[in-house]
Amino acid sequence: MNDPTSQVFPVWLGGEWCAASSNESLSAHNPQTGEGLSECYPVSTWDDLETSLAYATEAFEALRLVAPQRLAQFLDDYATRIERDAERLAAAASIETGLPVAPRLKDVEIPRTVNQLRQAAKAAADGSWALPTIDSQNNIRSCHVAIGPVVVFGPNNFPFAYNAIAGGDFASAIAAGNPVIAKAHPAHPTTTRLLAEHCAAAVEAAGLPAATVQLLYQFSSDDGLRLVGDSRVAAFGFTGSRSAGLALKAACDAVGTPSYLEMSSVNPVVVLSGALEERLDDVVDKFCTSCLMATGQFCTNPGLVILIEGSNTDAFIEKVGKRFAETPGGVLLTQGVQASLAAGVAKVLAAGAEAVAGGGINSGPAISFQNTLLRVSGAKFLQNPEVFQTEMFGNASLFVVAADVAEVLEIIAHLEGNLTGTIFSASSSGTDEQDYQRIAPRLRQKVGRLNDDKMPTGVLVTAAMNHGGPFPATGHAGFTAVGFPACVRRFSMLQCFDGVRHEHLPELLRDPNPTGKTWRLIDGGWSQGDVATAAAATR
Amino acid sequence: MNDPTSQVFPVWLGGEWCAASSNESLSAHNPQTGEGLSECYPVSTWDDLETSLAYATEAFEALRLVAPQRLAQFLDDYATRIERDAERLAAAASIETGLPVAPRLKDVEIPRTVNQLRQAAKAAADGSWALPTIDSQNNIRSCHVAIGPVVVFGPNNFPFAYNAIAGGDFASAIAAGNPVIAKAHPAHPTTTRLLAEHCAAAVEAAGLPAATVQLLYQFSSDDGLRLVGDSRVAAFGFTGSRSAGLALKAACDAVGTPSYLEMSSVNPVVVLSGALEERLDDVVDKFCTSCLMATGQFCTNPGLVILIEGSNTDAFIEKVGKRFAETPGGVLLTQGVQASLAAGVAKVLAAGAEAVAGGGINSGPAISFQNTLLRVSGAKFLQNPEVFQTEMFGNASLFVVAADVAEVLEIIAHLEGNLTGTIFSASSSGTDEQDYQRIAPRLRQKVGRLNDDKMPTGVLVTAAMNHGGPFPATGHAGFTAVGFPACVRRFSMLQCFDGVRHEHLPELLRDPNPTGKTWRLIDGGWSQGDVATAAAATR
Repeated sequence: MNDPTSQVFPVWLGGEWCAASSNESLSAHNPQTGEGLSECYPVSTWDDLETSLAYATEAFEALRLVAPQRLAQFLDDYATRIERDAERLAAAASIETGLPVAPRLKDVEIPRTVNQLRQAAKAAADGSWALPTIDSQNNIRSCHVAIGPVVVFGPNNFPFAYNAIAGGDFASAIAAGNPVIAKAHPAHPTTTRLLAEHCAAAVEAAGLPAATVQLLYQFSSDDGLRLVGDSRVAAFGFTGSRSAGLALKAACDAVGTPSYLEMSSVNPVVVLSGALEERLDDVVDKFCTSCLMATGQFCTNPGLVILIEGSNTDAFIEKVGKRFAETPGGVLLTQGVQASLAAGVAKVLAAGAEAVAGGGINSGPAISFQNTLLRVSGAKFLQNPEVFQTEMFGNASLFVVAADVAEVLEIIAHLEGNLTGTIFSASSSGTDEQDYQRIAPRLRQKVGRLNDDKMPTGVLVTAAMNHGGPFPATGHAGFTAVGFPACVRRFSMLQCFDGVRHEHLPELLRDPNPTGKTWRLIDGGWSQGDVATAAAATR
Repeated sequence: MNDPTSQVFPVWLGGEWCAASSNESLSAHNPQTGEGLSECYPVSTWDDLETSLAYATEAFEALRLVAPQRLAQFLDDYATRIERDAERLAAAASIETGLPVAPRLKDVEIPRTVNQLRQAAKAAADGSWALPTIDSQNNIRSCHVAIGPVVVFGPNNFPFAYNAIAGGDFASAIAAGNPVIAKAHPAHPTTTRLLAEHCAAAVEAAGLPAATVQLLYQFSSDDGLRLVGDSRVAAFGFTGSRSAGLALKAACDAVGTPSYLEMSSVNPVVVLSGALEERLDDVVDKFCTSCLMATGQFCTNPGLVILIEGSNTDAFIEKVGKRFAETPGGVLLTQGVQASLAAGVAKVLAAGAEAVAGGGINSGPAISFQNTLLRVSGAKFLQNPEVFQTEMFGNASLFVVAADVAEVLEIIAHLEGNLTGTIFSASSSGTDEQDYQRIAPRLRQKVGRLNDDKMPTGVLVTAAMNHGGPFPATGHAGFTAVGFPACVRRFSMLQCFDGVRHEHLPELLRDPNPTGKTWRLIDGGWSQGDVATAAAATR
């Protein structure tokens, strides 16, 4: 029940900020102090979700008449509003997440978020994301098109860049022309509300349908399953835990709704002997920075390092262990993250790993855990590969010491799907190169992104990025959550127009190039030209 | 149990024709005569499936070292072998399916199949299907890559063009570089065996890994679910009934395996008043040809026609009914098809439709059903929209007569996802055009392909085709089963190479264009050039 003396913030439905249909409220915590924050946010009942679905369905009808340039205008304007308010936004997010205002939030994550929204704007206005494909001789034309209302659940660890109302899934879904029902993460509702206020101003300024974007803060997991399984939901974007992701995926699968889920990943890193021989301290540095940055709370955190017994292996482990022990454990996002990290570490220790550094909770007001380095032999890993792949989300990693390359290959054969895989090898050709040739093809097939000699953290927003990977890292290995324009296609359907009269075609598929620079696959070749021009050129 | 006196054909596993692990056998029937055919084919037990999985896993490792040009060579050679043997193949298929040798099998379906294999060869050799994407400045590069062993189940109605060992899914999966485990359709095992013999010769001639293609004829549905749910299966292609498709989809979903399913579709056709006024007889002709061709056994058969009450509506229905009654009902593929058609017609009649023509089984040795035209009012349709969308696979269609355009819109709002949707309207602008503008946007979102003034049957194999559509017509509205190169991407995963040394990159992503004509998205523009050239050009 709400405390009647405290104000509960409204939800944003159908273009209005309105009192939630709710019996409960939630407040976030400041993980630096452990204290509860004063702002109260509603836990909606089904009535709010039903309302959001009805509005989103209407908004989709209206959005189909909106020129993509207007979507671009909205995305650009929203980006600018966030940019202008970066200081206040970063401060709010820092209180809710414990992440530092600078450089992380203000200088890295907000600029990335702004950049993503602008890339989405560019993709929307340009239209090339839709892979327009034209067979001029037979007048058969197709492209990807908005699919319908999209529900987005954001994660705890990126209050801006993956926020359900401002991050990559949001920007992709809007760029394709879909309305979005966003669910805030309960760990940073105020950050989300501030974003939503900018979003609302931008929706209004662009004259988009009022329910193009809607915001709910929280609801029961049963209502969440009911929401994504509702026939009015056309697609679902999710970033979060495996257990929640799998339950939501099942609800979508049962009704044939495409879901794009980014779940857990331990991001295996293989360090070959030559790399340690050549640049041990450099690899120690790179690993420690990657694993401890933001208290390790990245989906691409290097949580599993595979080493081979050798003259430098123990020295490497020792140096990393020393650095972990010397460095104070950072602040974790929530008590849930802390509890889950503690449970993961305990599980891996119970299975027979030994602690090189850390392993326990840091006492004090801040929510924190010791920087934790665990170690296990390859042979022991292979006795229980599933348990040793338990994600320890946070500042922890498991080092697996294999007897030889053959054992490395066996370990890789037992790996689940991951977002990334990494190999460090000596820069000079030598035995590392032979090992690389044996290891890379097998690791390659288990991961969405392969890195040479660089740690997996740091996901550049570029067209060539793949932030995705085989199940259970994500729900479908063919899609990426980061990288325009490909990420936009997740929230689309393919539509073909067969023998359709020219005046009935969408602009993207008519003879004249819609923008003068949109890329279209015309009669087998990619072209920025008009249809007649291109067809004439290939004749 | 096998009849010990009859020979049971072997299965094709690991490159060998070997006796199946089987307790049972099956024989197909000649639907023209109703007689059982003499050839016996094995119903495999799990042992055969297990064997096929082990071989396919090995074959995939080997295939990753095979140049795409060799896959192309195989596909081309296989196409030529089918082409050369077209007469014998068409004769065998005609006996098993009742479809005429000419023109259907020999002059249409085999040439289409051969054409598909050749388009797949071209796609494999060229590599543009993989959407290679290069950020040269950051050395981040990505493309779609083979995903692993693919299981394909083919349907009853296309013994060549959708055959699990020669059709579109097969050609797509191979072009991407995957091994295929094909399951024959039990209605045409001999056709499938003859294809497999050509396939085996082509695999050997190209020097592909022996288990690149394997063939099983039949197994229990439980074993089928276990097969597609096995962790060694990377993707699944299916064309067939909704009930089987949904069960197999659930087995795939549970383990995160992507499945591409083409299930049922009634392919709504809206005929506007002006079209009837302008060219009634032409529409009658087009509709009857489309609906009765191949005894209506197409997934794009026009099974639901939406008309509006008007001066020509009854005349149209009457003329179609007359033509249906006068035309002898063709041969159906199997007794199962006949039974299912009879059940579908009975269900729709029981719900309140009336029979304008036909409605019953044709007696005689041939498996046949009367050409059946049913009729219902829009109001009655809306009382029970689910039942009135029952697929009547075969030579039957339901005409729904709506009171007005508003009712048409309401009917469309209740439609499930379909492969195609069609609107016939008057060629001169008039009220039809206004009606089109109201109807098309709503119909558009329910179907994968929209046709103007042409019936939905006839799926041209072109890059711009979409043979797909919203659930439950298929399992994912973002993919097409027909149309190279897009159809190839279904059987792939996205792989990114981040900071990977140039010599570690696949050829498709290295600086020089791999073929001199492969299309790659380099630094934001599509190019057939080398990376340096393209990057220099955009600087």
